[in-house]
Amino acid sequence: MEKITLVVKGMTCMGCVRSVKTVLEPLAGVANVDITLDGGLVAVELDPALVQIDQLKAAIDDAGYEVVA
Amino acid sequence: MEKITLVVKGMTCMGCVRSVKTVLEPLAGVANVDITLDGGLVAVELDPALVQIDQLKAAIDDAGYEVVA
Repeated sequence: MEKITLVVKGMTCMGCVRSVKTVLEPLAGVANVDITLDGGLVAVELDPALVQIDQLKAAIDDAGYEVVA
Repeated sequence: MEKITLVVKGMTCMGCVRSVKTVLEPLAGVANVDITLDGGLVAVELDPALVQIDQLKAAIDDAGYEVVA
């Protein structure tokens, strides 16, 4: 397991937070998603053999939020 | 073109609204999406030959929001 943190722009309420969690959690290799609304921090525990960071970014992007870091 | 309106639970800010728009607009056959946050109304203009209502519902559901009607 590895832990990475992305900075995501556009989450402005707990509904947004839940939406981002919902698109990340079903991905194979994602073990845990912890989001802090203030600052837009998306911390993901993942198995790097199963999921690439680019897949996480694409899923967030597809849901209408912007990964800025 | 046909116009349908879904009632969606869980959108609590304009970020949520944008997220739902973002998952619906790229679907083939979806011509226009108009969302009213108050009441959770999602009005979709669509070509019924290209897209089924169940596809819209699945996309909304996958994004973490609940279609209630």
